[in-house]
Amino acid sequence: MAPSDCRIPPLQPILYEDIVRRALMEDLGTAGDLTTDAIVSAAEECAASVIARSGGRVAGLEVAAFAFRCLSPQAEADILVPDGSDASPGDRLALIRGSARTLLSAERTALNFLGHLSGIATATRGIVAAVVQSKARVVCTRKTTPGLRALEKYAVRAGGGFNHRFGLDDAVLIKDNHRLVAGGVAEAVRRVRRYVGHMIKIEVEVDTLEELEEALALGVDAILLDNMPVDILTRGVRMAQGKAITEASGGITQATAAAVAATGVDLLSVGWITHSAPALDVSLDFAVSV
Amino acid sequence: MAPSDCRIPPLQPILYEDIVRRALMEDLGTAGDLTTDAIVSAAEECAASVIARSGGRVAGLEVAAFAFRCLSPQAEADILVPDGSDASPGDRLALIRGSARTLLSAERTALNFLGHLSGIATATRGIVAAVVQSKARVVCTRKTTPGLRALEKYAVRAGGGFNHRFGLDDAVLIKDNHRLVAGGVAEAVRRVRRYVGHMIKIEVEVDTLEELEEALALGVDAILLDNMPVDILTRGVRMAQGKAITEASGGITQATAAAVAATGVDLLSVGWITHSAPALDVSLDFAVSV
Amino acid sequence: MAPSDCRIPPLQPILYEDIVRRALMEDLGTAGDLTTDAIVSAAEECAASVIARSGGRVAGLEVAAFAFRCLSPQAEADILVPDGSDASPGDRLALIRGSARTLLSAERTALNFLGHLSGIATATRGIVAAVVQSKARVVCTRKTTPGLRALEKYAVRAGGGFNHRFGLDDAVLIKDNHRLVAGGVAEAVRRVRRYVGHMIKIEVEVDTLEELEEALALGVDAILLDNMPVDILTRGVRMAQGKAITEASGGITQATAAAVAATGVDLLSVGWITHSAPALDVSLDFAVSV
Amino acid sequence: MAPSDCRIPPLQPILYEDIVRRALMEDLGTAGDLTTDAIVSAAEECAASVIARSGGRVAGLEVAAFAFRCLSPQAEADILVPDGSDASPGDRLALIRGSARTLLSAERTALNFLGHLSGIATATRGIVAAVVQSKARVVCTRKTTPGLRALEKYAVRAGGGFNHRFGLDDAVLIKDNHRLVAGGVAEAVRRVRRYVGHMIKIEVEVDTLEELEEALALGVDAILLDNMPVDILTRGVRMAQGKAITEASGGITQATAAAVAATGVDLLSVGWITHSAPALDVSLDFAVSV
Amino acid sequence: MAPSDCRIPPLQPILYEDIVRRALMEDLGTAGDLTTDAIVSAAEECAASVIARSGGRVAGLEVAAFAFRCLSPQAEADILVPDGSDASPGDRLALIRGSARTLLSAERTALNFLGHLSGIATATRGIVAAVVQSKARVVCTRKTTPGLRALEKYAVRAGGGFNHRFGLDDAVLIKDNHRLVAGGVAEAVRRVRRYVGHMIKIEVEVDTLEELEEALALGVDAILLDNMPVDILTRGVRMAQGKAITEASGGITQATAAAVAATGVDLLSVGWITHSAPALDVSLDFAVSV
Amino acid sequence: MAPSDCRIPPLQPILYEDIVRRALMEDLGTAGDLTTDAIVSAAEECAASVIARSGGRVAGLEVAAFAFRCLSPQAEADILVPDGSDASPGDRLALIRGSARTLLSAERTALNFLGHLSGIATATRGIVAAVVQSKARVVCTRKTTPGLRALEKYAVRAGGGFNHRFGLDDAVLIKDNHRLVAGGVAEAVRRVRRYVGHMIKIEVEVDTLEELEEALALGVDAILLDNMPVDILTRGVRMAQGKAITEASGGITQATAAAVAATGVDLLSVGWITHSAPALDVSLDFAVSV
Repeated sequence: MAPSDCRIPPLQPILYEDIVRRALMEDLGTAGDLTTDAIVSAAEECAASVIARSGGRVAGLEVAAFAFRCLSPQAEADILVPDGSDASPGDRLALIRGSARTLLSAERTALNFLGHLSGIATATRGIVAAVVQSKARVVCTRKTTPGLRALEKYAVRAGGGFNHRFGLDDAVLIKDNHRLVAGGVAEAVRRVRRYVGHMIKIEVEVDTLEELEEALALGVDAILLDNMPVDILTRGVRMAQGKAITEASGGITQATAAAVAATGVDLLSVGWITHSAPALDVSLDFAVSV
Repeated sequence: MAPSDCRIPPLQPILYEDIVRRALMEDLGTAGDLTTDAIVSAAEECAASVIARSGGRVAGLEVAAFAFRCLSPQAEADILVPDGSDASPGDRLALIRGSARTLLSAERTALNFLGHLSGIATATRGIVAAVVQSKARVVCTRKTTPGLRALEKYAVRAGGGFNHRFGLDDAVLIKDNHRLVAGGVAEAVRRVRRYVGHMIKIEVEVDTLEELEEALALGVDAILLDNMPVDILTRGVRMAQGKAITEASGGITQATAAAVAATGVDLLSVGWITHSAPALDVSLDFAVSV
Repeated sequence: MAPSDCRIPPLQPILYEDIVRRALMEDLGTAGDLTTDAIVSAAEECAASVIARSGGRVAGLEVAAFAFRCLSPQAEADILVPDGSDASPGDRLALIRGSARTLLSAERTALNFLGHLSGIATATRGIVAAVVQSKARVVCTRKTTPGLRALEKYAVRAGGGFNHRFGLDDAVLIKDNHRLVAGGVAEAVRRVRRYVGHMIKIEVEVDTLEELEEALALGVDAILLDNMPVDILTRGVRMAQGKAITEASGGITQATAAAVAATGVDLLSVGWITHSAPALDVSLDFAVSV
Repeated sequence: MAPSDCRIPPLQPILYEDIVRRALMEDLGTAGDLTTDAIVSAAEECAASVIARSGGRVAGLEVAAFAFRCLSPQAEADILVPDGSDASPGDRLALIRGSARTLLSAERTALNFLGHLSGIATATRGIVAAVVQSKARVVCTRKTTPGLRALEKYAVRAGGGFNHRFGLDDAVLIKDNHRLVAGGVAEAVRRVRRYVGHMIKIEVEVDTLEELEEALALGVDAILLDNMPVDILTRGVRMAQGKAITEASGGITQATAAAVAATGVDLLSVGWITHSAPALDVSLDFAVSV
Repeated sequence: MAPSDCRIPPLQPILYEDIVRRALMEDLGTAGDLTTDAIVSAAEECAASVIARSGGRVAGLEVAAFAFRCLSPQAEADILVPDGSDASPGDRLALIRGSARTLLSAERTALNFLGHLSGIATATRGIVAAVVQSKARVVCTRKTTPGLRALEKYAVRAGGGFNHRFGLDDAVLIKDNHRLVAGGVAEAVRRVRRYVGHMIKIEVEVDTLEELEEALALGVDAILLDNMPVDILTRGVRMAQGKAITEASGGITQATAAAVAATGVDLLSVGWITHSAPALDVSLDFAVSV
Repeated sequence: MAPSDCRIPPLQPILYEDIVRRALMEDLGTAGDLTTDAIVSAAEECAASVIARSGGRVAGLEVAAFAFRCLSPQAEADILVPDGSDASPGDRLALIRGSARTLLSAERTALNFLGHLSGIATATRGIVAAVVQSKARVVCTRKTTPGLRALEKYAVRAGGGFNHRFGLDDAVLIKDNHRLVAGGVAEAVRRVRRYVGHMIKIEVEVDTLEELEEALALGVDAILLDNMPVDILTRGVRMAQGKAITEASGGITQATAAAVAATGVDLLSVGWITHSAPALDVSLDFAVSV
């Protein structure tokens, strides 16, 4: 699956510079890298390769490269495999050159970003592949790691997925408790329309076909069909046909994704690709004095 | 395995307050929680229970509780199951009371912390249980999620594990590349001793028994035996007996941990418990007007 | 025009606490309030009334009150006229009690927020009143004062207006230059749909009826009819009827708003209510020792 | 009126870098510029002209230019009309070159700064022109937009005005309430002199000629004659002749400024030039691929 | 020398809260207080006395108290000896109560502030006492510890001294290099008057009586007589009588201060009271369970 | 004493960039450098030499150089005398080139860092020289200036000393109060071992030889012998021989250091080298237009 250059345009660095900088300071503390500072002279230059030790979808190389440049602007990174590409075990993803102290001191931070984001991209790729026969899109949720949402949403795109809401501020999703407080979904939707601007979409979460029917009558943009068995979901999707975007959620796994997608639902939303994807195994292999 | 109150003393809030605050701002953006602001009046009060939907080791309840208090200091949290305890599916972990807007707006951020940290504690607990017959301790690595190291190291303790270095600044770990730059481990250790203070321990990573012998002769505090088969490891541990702490690392899983521990090694260091542990499934169940 | 309590729910304090704190530090510098510190003893308590010296729509009282509490948590504020209400010259808007030093040192910062936000609310109210005979809504733009967007968007709501995009991140607006780069609006929309999630609305800016026709054929959510004379706008609105939300923009003033609204357009977007509204005249009247 | 290069030396970038950076992050949110990221490839370069669409005094071009460089250091800005110059409608103020994504994503933030600051400079220029026949200087107040004081004070200088206090920390201004708390202006001045250093000037606000007389007797540096009719002001200025700098304040407009200045007063302080000046209309005109 | 409550009004907490918070985080790092967390249970309460182990002038007790409250808002501090008072060895300065963990973890940070600031106050007191027979005031300089200027200037006041400029932004001081660049002091002063507002004082540094004469002719507010022998200084002071405030600077010590003051100079500026004052010896004595 | 390039490797800039930046902003305030901005045109270039006016050990030149570059990246610094070298009065330490405004505006901040850190290095050098006949190392404490610990610890290394703990987080030091709370040192050590990782050293503070004996029996890494007369200390050191590192502390001065070192103790810890070292006298000498 070749990366589409338009699906994963590079992130604006301003979206991650502070995050990377804080991560480096977290690792360096007040004393800095004791081992490297003691052993490696400031004049020593070197080069190192970023290697994929297991296969997967790559995401986060620009972010990782910034970790080195953040310690010394002279550090250079040649990215050989752009984000959104698939790597095989042993593939060289990038070549980093600079002072040996910089490479050694930023190594772990750079790899932590790259492994984490590539892990999310790889997990997303898996689900996307499972539903490739259908028209369904895979979308992520707000179940992201605190502080890393911009990066994790980007990794989902690198994996071939699409983004759901980035936060509570860019779209409306009416859940059970909102409905309960408002005294019904109709009143909840009425309140929302009185409050939000015209560029905000409205989605309603439903648990039953009765709730679905009620929500569809309100003309909302999308419906979240939560935790429905496949047969119920199939009926729900048919009811919503042409009236609202449909999204299935609740415990969708690699194994069940194809069956869910086969219902004709527009979207599968999957929380675990951001909150539980294992990291991709990546390493930095050094060659002294390049 | 009951939690020892001394093993998991509560984190000083100053170590996570900024992290939680930033996470909330990440979710609220500039516009805030559109759905809740539109639907729920500021006067509405409610209560909600934090529920474990799957079983596991709990970590992060104080952190999650702070997410609510950060939005409104009047919010109250009764923690029913202290961090470091085991929960069964359906267990109520805490009771939160406060304005309905606060509870709804902070819900996802609070649960993201709790699920992530409890996931790490649960993974750690699993490995710890696997080696319970041995004297070996399970330790974590610096392969943590950027920005969350303090919290993830805490979660490892809640899971019964111990912490390795918190950063590059609190101990020395001489790896291949340091040795290479210095022109040998003896010179590397010499440089370190000339540089670091007396409260800093020195560990050396070795790949072979020859390297182990060389490192032991230098009188370092600990040896990291990297990626050794169990039989080689057994010999290495015997060689180091009484001379240095021994640590095994490299691809240790739930399945292999017991065999590794049986070599008599002091420590098993496991990266995946922080970088690849799936989140624990937790939820917030609302009851309006309590 | 009575305020609707749902239209202007109070902002979450986390959205403005840092902004207010920075504003106070900007005014206090390193030396603090020289005049007050020299003259007023720390034990002196007092009370003061926030007064509207000219008539207008009030917005920002909670924010202003926080300025006092930020200097001393003991300061108390009774808000007498909630945000979103109309005040006449001389009306008392709030009563502040606390240490005299706090009231004197925070006075200007508090009033700067209140006057600025009430100025925006008042300007918005004026345009809203001008179109009250129509169904049209008044919306603001991204032409806000740097650093104050959350607050200014809130002030627009307090004035009876609605919010357009909060930033570049919550909706798509395809302008001339985007179209130019893409080589046509159809390609631009195609690229957007391939990139953005299902909760993101798409609006296209058009300058002519030909462009309008082209955009309508693409099924986008909204059309921005830019700088059209009223007769052309009328035709454009008719063409778009039932196909897309219509928004008129470009030099709309208090004088021309009614005519624009009479075209049947859904929205009037007005930049000057945020970037050029004069501040409302507000003051703090002290009464020593209350 | 040609700009004096010494009256408006460029601001040190450190005074605004964080402000501009925060403004960009406010606009980009977590998701970034959805429209541009979707449509424009990272390789696309372009150029654009900053154009004055209405006539006025220019201020803020360096600040606006920094907005582009903040997103990509490779962006270049040729400033054609330096701050402090007058521009006619249609004048090209600067030429910006860089990646098309950078120019599109930073456009609004850059223009928001430029329009706002040029609006203040233009308003100031108007009042300055009105009093050009007198020796009086126009000065601004602390009624500035929260967070932008350094920039707005700079814009006042670009408009030909002078700066009053930058904050509560750089000079003493004894107002009614300070006098009240101290039990008289003499005691207030005595307390100030006992507290502040020798480099701090002292100004006293007076409402009547009796108060003026009392203040002059104390030998303070300046007197603020607040809200006095022109005839009273004339007498006050004569009384203060050679004893203290005189400053008139209170509702001074373009229309009344000349008459106030004709009293011989040294300074006219005008709040609205910072809190209520309408923005100057500026735009960015793109030419693709330069 | 009893403290004058007006000379050392308490600092607004907003001026030091961030400084103290950062200092605590510097000490706690990512792992927190390992010793205390391991040993002391969260439930343990205690009390401790802040003791002066050597005699001196006290400054910084509110700041030190905030260090404890910053770790836990429940911590209480009774300040027994207000800032600006003299303490004898063994005097109890304050009583702190709270959780034992808080007291132990914040102890060093609190004492570092208190010892440092009291050291400055004590050094200042010494110089002030040396010139008590004269009318001269002792003033500090901008030679302060980076990041602590607000606090150190406060400590100087607590010691009986006065503050010179707080920064480059609150007054003008024309030095050799400024004069050189301008091509003479007259041109330098002319440029300054064309630039700065009316609330800004102007001081000129002179090395010779010829330079003094030239500066006096320009009518500046103050003259800094730098490094002049006492006899030359005496002549200079007489020349400046009634024309400008005079300030002596350059190597003034406890031993030479009285002779310098006897010249009739208005001010002695002393750099070492901020940059080289030894810390006062203070400690925290614990009594478990109060 | 020639500097060892390995003993004082340059600090990673990320460890001080924010500190320097904040220090500059502290000095520039909101208005900037009034004097320089008024007098010096932005086009003026110049060069200046950093001069040691008294003799001492140099530390902080890279940090000082960054102060200039922080105001303008074009500023260049040639460091002639590397940190850790000894300078005589009059020695030129560095040459700075750049815009005259930058050099004048950053001068004081740069010198404040350099003078403060060189003062600490010089004080350390003095104590180190006093014990040169012994094997003892001089170590610093946590009695550092708030916010400057990384820099002050570096200055100690430049002076030939070694670092003790950087914070509460990198090693364990059990003091009286910890022992008291635990009910004895044995229990305190037991709790620590149950809590901390294997890379953390443990030191115990003892006041008597009885306490020493008790601590030695526990096998801890180091013993702090507090405030012991030289004869008792000698006996203590002998007792600890081969069992633990020994550290003497308590009122060690230049005069007493040699005698303390002669006891054979491993370490002398000295608080005053960080909290009470007078600044080294350094200046910036300008030569216009280079």
